[in-house]
This record gives sequence, structure tokens and C-alpha cells, in this order.
Amino acid sequence: MRSSAASAVAHGLCAFTLTPTTPADEIDERAIQTLVARAAAAGVDSLGVLGSTGSYPYLTRDQRLRVATTAVEHAQGLPVLVGVGAIATRMVLDHVEDAQQAGAAGVLLPVMQYQPLTETEAYGLFEQVDANLSVPLVVYDNPATTRFSFSDDLYARVAELPNVAAIKVPPLPRDRAAARRRVEHLRGLLPAGVAIGVSGDAAACAGLLGGADAWYSVIGGTLPERAVALARAAIGGDYREAMRRDAELAPLWGFFAENGGSLRVVAAIAEELGLVRSSSLPAPLRGLDEPARIKLRALLGLV
Amino acid sequence: MRSSAASAVAHGLCAFTLTPTTPADEIDERAIQTLVARAAAAGVDSLGVLGSTGSYPYLTRDQRLRVATTAVEHAQGLPVLVGVGAIATRMVLDHVEDAQQAGAAGVLLPVMQYQPLTETEAYGLFEQVDANLSVPLVVYDNPATTRFSFSDDLYARVAELPNVAAIKVPPLPRDRAAARRRVEHLRGLLPAGVAIGVSGDAAACAGLLGGADAWYSVIGGTLPERAVALARAAIGGDYREAMRRDAELAPLWGFFAENGGSLRVVAAIAEELGLVRSSSLPAPLRGLDEPARIKLRALLGLV
Repeated sequence: MRSSAASAVAHGLCAFTLTPTTPADEIDERAIQTLVARAAAAGVDSLGVLGSTGSYPYLTRDQRLRVATTAVEHAQGLPVLVGVGAIATRMVLDHVEDAQQAGAAGVLLPVMQYQPLTETEAYGLFEQVDANLSVPLVVYDNPATTRFSFSDDLYARVAELPNVAAIKVPPLPRDRAAARRRVEHLRGLLPAGVAIGVSGDAAACAGLLGGADAWYSVIGGTLPERAVALARAAIGGDYREAMRRDAELAPLWGFFAENGGSLRVVAAIAEELGLVRSSSLPAPLRGLDEPARIKLRALLGLV
Repeated sequence: MRSSAASAVAHGLCAFTLTPTTPADEIDERAIQTLVARAAAAGVDSLGVLGSTGSYPYLTRDQRLRVATTAVEHAQGLPVLVGVGAIATRMVLDHVEDAQQAGAAGVLLPVMQYQPLTETEAYGLFEQVDANLSVPLVVYDNPATTRFSFSDDLYARVAELPNVAAIKVPPLPRDRAAARRRVEHLRGLLPAGVAIGVSGDAAACAGLLGGADAWYSVIGGTLPERAVALARAAIGGDYREAMRRDAELAPLWGFFAENGGSLRVVAAIAEELGLVRSSSLPAPLRGLDEPARIKLRALLGLV
């Protein structure tokens, strides 16, 4: 039987924060404290660290432990979901141990790969991690970044593992009826009690209105008030208000798509808002160039 | 001016060895010694460790240092090229330091990525690493695995960096005239003294006959006599003998293509030959299944 503890990181708005780094690629703990405290104060339901926009693959084991510890300390009692992804199972298990020691309310596990994995190999990873867990597991499907795609059959098999609390699925269709059909289809595949979480902020409104349980949100970590307003309306079933909030954010969704995904864009937002020092990404990543920043400032109402 | 030391890892047959692991995902140092000594005894020109078939992304920093140290100790004086790839520049620089300390004759650097990198970001990685090197650098372009593709312009810019000794390019066309045209085109892009190395064993014969300087060979680490015979003939310009040797290996090239690339296949070959214990791949990777092994045994003349 699934524990009720699972729900804390499987329902509502989970705000994923950046992991800003210094020019020497040390983690900027003070900036992490700021981002975490700011999201918590805005009323998010939980926090997520060390997701893709938390730069987890660019950080050492020690850095990742410090990010998790800092987040738990400054989360004002909110549950913290900690990313434990790595290319080798052995490394994932080390990160699981560290996350649990840091006080994580759950762990988030993507299928990170170098050699393309078979579904059997991916299932084996989840099985081995699940057997070594004492907190809920959120399965992270993000094919645009990891290049690994789950089949529906793999969702169903992984979701049977005892600690799996939620599946974080790739962006649902932005069409509300299509999103609802996909959520209903997934609901039929998964055991009762395993939640469905949406990612891809541009599709969050349709996903939540379509019945998804959670929004694993990138803007939740950097523009938390806007994410909270959208999530509250959509989860509360206030279609009109949710769609109004989503429409306000549409230029930002377009900007994400034009600029190669969310990490570089949200890092630039945090830099422009003065929440982190500029050049906050770990090498070899570079931030947005100046023409893109000029457009971004306009979108944010900063000019 | 480029040092003559560069040539040691930029010409002839460089045999890449596996990094066999135990069921607990510890590295099997004794098996590494066996593989390295066997390739050296067969007459290869240099050794390569911690390439893609050396499982570098699945190993910790400490494990990688021990692989490099073990290889240098057992290489019977042959130069050893050590892979230093990682997702973060900071980690690459740590691996460079370790490789140099272990006695590497050169380092091999792929563009490993999680967030897709721009060419500017990739160039920045090579520039930063080059500035921290005291041994030659082999640039590793392997888009099938890393999903990063070099443009010709990026080859040319990276090759201008002072320590770059060679570019390891993706498989050339198997057609000899087409391979020669591509080698000549690359030769025109690169500064004099920067070598062209071929990878993709199935295309090695055409590449060497077409004028490439080096073969970075996967089978060189596991079936070294066959690789040496092919390389000697092709480098010596003995077309007939080279093509005969290549034709003998054609069923194996087909088997690589059918089985998702070279790592799982060469690991199975080493297992079948008793060079490493079976189940020699780090989790979550699994070896070939039994139907594939039955076919492989037949190809190897083991049944």
C-alpha cells in the first residue's frame, strides 16, 4: 500500500529552482537560499531541486548534497523533491543516500543515458533504486533532454514499484480536450494512488485543467507568484481565470521555444531580476546573448 | 609549433580497451591489465582507455584515475590516450589533471552534453581544456553517441588550439573514393600537423586507404591481432590485403549495426573469449541477450 507521505511531492505546484553557480563553478548557496525562500513565501506546495533546470548533471556529488541540504533548510517546512539522476546506477544510489540524509521528502529520477538504454535497462534502474528507497519516488520522463522515451507499457510497469508516487510526464497537448484524453489514458494505465504530474510550463494549464495532479514547474522557481496564480486557478477548476493567466504568460512560452528550452531562459530571468549574479550557469553552458536578453526584458516588463 | 610528441597518439592503430566492471560495479583491474597487455603484445601503436567503449561516463573520478594508472603500468611502454570527457567543464579539468598524473601520452575529449550545446559553448570547452594541458589533445567527434555534431568550421577553429594533435572523426563513407574525398576535404580545413583519425571500425579500411593518419579502433582492444593485420595492410597501401581483412570482418560490422553499436558487442566478445567475467558492463547497462550471443559465437568461430 502506498504511503500518504507520497502525496506531498505528487500534488499541486512543485517549484523547481535553479542551482546558480559562481564564475569558478562553485555553487552559490546564498542565491539558492534566496530562490527557495522566495518560492516558499509565494505559496507553492512543494519545492524541487536538482532537476534539469537545477543543473544536476553539471554538479559533483558533494555539490548536489549541499544543494539538497540548503534547500531543505530554507524551505520553511515545505517538502523538497530532490533529483537523483546520473548515468550510472551506482551514482544514482549514492545520490539517493545523500538526498535522504539531507531530508528530502521524495526523489526525482530521470533516465539519464549515454549509451541509449533499452526499456529493460531503464526498468532495471528504477527497480534497483526503488529497492533502496525510504521516501517516495517521482519518475521523470523528459525525452527532449534525456533522449529516452518511455512507452506506456514502461510507465505501467515502473508505476507498480512500491515507492513510486508520481510520473512526471512530458508536455501534454495544449489543446484542453486532447490533454484530458491523455490524462485519462494514463490514469487507466497506472495503479490507483500514483499521481500524474505535468511538466513543460507551456502545457501546464491544459494539463491541470485536464485532470493532472501536479505541475512540476520551471517558472515556479523563478516567477513563483505567476505560477501560483495559474496553478490555483487551474487546480480549482476556474477555467476562465486559468486561461487568462496562461495567456498572460504565452509570450514567455514562445520565448522558451525559441531559445532552446528552459534552462538558459530561466537563468537569464533570475539574472535580470537580480536574484542571482549574472553568468550563473556552469561551464560549458553560456547564458543568453544580448539580443535575446533585450527581448526577454521587454517580456518581463522590465523596460 | 606542435610538438613531435603529438604523433604518438595521432598515428597508426590506437586500440581502445573496455573497462570491465564487477557485479558490484567496481572496476576489474586484473581484466584491464589483461586487455591492455594483450593489445600491446599484438603490436598496436598506442592504447586508448576511457573512450565510449571504455564506459567513461559510468565511472567515478577515482575509478577513472585507476583505469588510467593501470593502463599506463601495463602498456609495455606504448603511449596511452586517456578519455577525459564529462558533462561539466570543471569535471573535465579534474580528469585532465588525473590523466596527466597517471602518465597519459595524450587526452581524448568528446563533447558530452545534457543540455544541447551550441558550437560556441563547445569551442569554449576545448579552449579552456587546451589552456590547461601539458600533453596532446585528440578531439573526439562521435555524434551517434554524444548527439553533438561538429561543423567543418568548428573542426577548423578547434584544430587551431596549440595542443590539438588530431581530430577523431565519425565513420567515413565505406566507399573508398568517397572516403578519400572526405579526408582530403578535412586536410584542407586543418592546420598542417593536425592528424585525422577514423573511428567506426566498419569504415576504418576505407578511411585508412583514403589517407587518414590513425584508426581509433574498438576491436583493437578486444581482437587486436585482426585489427593489427587490417591496419598494417591499409596503412602500408596494400589494398588487396586490407580489403581481404576487412571482408573477413564484415559479418562483425553487420552485427555491430544490428545490436545498437559497439559497447555491448565488444563486451560480449570479451566475455565469450574469457578475457573478462561475464556481465562486465556497469549498471544500468546489460549485456547482449542469449539469442544475440549464439549468433556472435558463430561469427567468432567459437562454435
